[in-house]
Amino acid sequence: MRKYDEKKELDSMNGALALRPQINEFIDKIHERGYSNVCWLGIGGTYASSMQAVVHMKEKTAIETFVQHATEYLVTGNKRITKDTLIIISSVTGTTQEVVAAIDKIKKEVGSTVFAFIDKADTPLGNMADHAVIYPMNEQLKFFMTADRLMYLAGEYPDYNDFYKEMDQHFAKNIVAVAKKADKFGQEVAEKHHNDSMHYFVGAGNQWGATYSHAMCYWEEQHWLRSKSIESAEFFHGTLEVIDRDTAVTVYVGEDTQRPLSERVAKFLPQICGNYTIIDTKDYELPGISEKYRGHLSPFVFRAINNRIDAYVEHLNRHPMTIRRYYRCLDY
Amino acid sequence: MRKYDEKKELDSMNGALALRPQINEFIDKIHERGYSNVCWLGIGGTYASSMQAVVHMKEKTAIETFVQHATEYLVTGNKRITKDTLIIISSVTGTTQEVVAAIDKIKKEVGSTVFAFIDKADTPLGNMADHAVIYPMNEQLKFFMTADRLMYLAGEYPDYNDFYKEMDQHFAKNIVAVAKKADKFGQEVAEKHHNDSMHYFVGAGNQWGATYSHAMCYWEEQHWLRSKSIESAEFFHGTLEVIDRDTAVTVYVGEDTQRPLSERVAKFLPQICGNYTIIDTKDYELPGISEKYRGHLSPFVFRAINNRIDAYVEHLNRHPMTIRRYYRCLDY
Repeated sequence: MRKYDEKKELDSMNGALALRPQINEFIDKIHERGYSNVCWLGIGGTYASSMQAVVHMKEKTAIETFVQHATEYLVTGNKRITKDTLIIISSVTGTTQEVVAAIDKIKKEVGSTVFAFIDKADTPLGNMADHAVIYPMNEQLKFFMTADRLMYLAGEYPDYNDFYKEMDQHFAKNIVAVAKKADKFGQEVAEKHHNDSMHYFVGAGNQWGATYSHAMCYWEEQHWLRSKSIESAEFFHGTLEVIDRDTAVTVYVGEDTQRPLSERVAKFLPQICGNYTIIDTKDYELPGISEKYRGHLSPFVFRAINNRIDAYVEHLNRHPMTIRRYYRCLDY
Repeated sequence: MRKYDEKKELDSMNGALALRPQINEFIDKIHERGYSNVCWLGIGGTYASSMQAVVHMKEKTAIETFVQHATEYLVTGNKRITKDTLIIISSVTGTTQEVVAAIDKIKKEVGSTVFAFIDKADTPLGNMADHAVIYPMNEQLKFFMTADRLMYLAGEYPDYNDFYKEMDQHFAKNIVAVAKKADKFGQEVAEKHHNDSMHYFVGAGNQWGATYSHAMCYWEEQHWLRSKSIESAEFFHGTLEVIDRDTAVTVYVGEDTQRPLSERVAKFLPQICGNYTIIDTKDYELPGISEKYRGHLSPFVFRAINNRIDAYVEHLNRHPMTIRRYYRCLDY
């Protein structure tokens, strides 16, 4: 398997799961004290992860929760963000300029509580937060653990302990098994699509943010390949008209509440397109995870599969995913 | 001017403005009675208009207000939608299947108040609503008039009467003047771009929904031209990496709070791209409209300009905008 270190992956995910007591200690304190709403503030990839956290919560919660784009906050503001708001952020570098500016403004002018996940210690964002959890990678898992604790404390997630018992025991090795099983498929997809002039990605629910991010933060930003993401529910209201026999389309069919919306696209597509890829989480076993929890894991299954595709696209195109043509090379 | 009937346009817009007493009568009653939050429910084009209504409100309001995708409501639900929620919808045909199903579910299971704008009388959606305003076209104006009344009653829009005095007197003829002034420009843009293999549209704030919709509901659905929309704030977090000398990019620079975000793209773009179009509302006079209100009108200015471009693209491509390859031709 190209670019895959099984032990490192297992350790990374298990280490993330082990953050739960630390997350809970802070979240329990916030719940005890009370809060008015929960704001996931981000930009680019973290904006996408935030969208997923909100959809994940919406399946269960009556808590007011929303995504706020960091840059848009700087110019338009958001009067729903008050001193009683819990703001959750995540950053790899802890330095993203727009997020630093937004959190600075919020801390100075509003006084909300800020909970941060940062990949490394001693960064501007980590230092500005009321509490920072320092641990690399696994952004979606960190967000879901936080969301789940909030919902558990609100009495909306009675299965919480049962679910995390299964997660702690089975999650990491299952996701590694998915990656291994998907490796050959990933290579085939990459061989077929690494040179696409355009690629459409369709997804829904707790995979929509990752669909958006896979098109923009991976294919556009890291592979310099043109791509567009569309919500499964929106596909029929415009985009379908530009799909023809040879158009490259990938549909993510997950197992959360919005599965029927992606199934509808997957079922329709073969009538008008001969160049589609359907990725269905149901094709991957997750031993030890109860049927009713599988939907929560769909984004992680897709992530493992997408990572396999990306590893081969990177090699075939001889285009290291770390290089940027313009970002952080030119001022904006 | 191709496909332009000045008198019809003037009458259409003035007729929409004249709906205000009818809108206010209902909204005043809802305000008097009380409501917990405001939900804009839509799909495709109305999902886009809903996004704009929410951004428009966010500039001023502390009212909880959000967009709900009709189809996603059917599978995921939304516990923030309760019997105390005011739901606002709009539909040309009054029959859009997913919206009918969502409103049916909400009326039966939740009992929210539904306020509908429908283009013609006696339709399923019009009949399901608590109150329906029947009048064709002008969706964004209808939404903004509703949003503005809600904010006025909440004490967040003291200028309301002053603003609508200017609107009633000057709006329609100003927008017609914009269309006339933009006609030659529209023809030039169409001649340059009617055959693009891909076109990127970048917009922000109260123009973001229309940017999304122009790419999807106009260029993809009606012209069968490939296009992608990107929020100005997100442009630097992925999409910029696929832009090169020959990539076709249009940037909408409006005058609302998010103007700086689009200005930033417009300023950056010429360094890396030689095939861009900047459309700036500041280039269009709006006599009788105070400087401080111009931002509210930006989406209408852009709409008038886009309509000119579309009229010429339609002709050059000999592709009537009313035909669909698949939608309502095939089941989904």
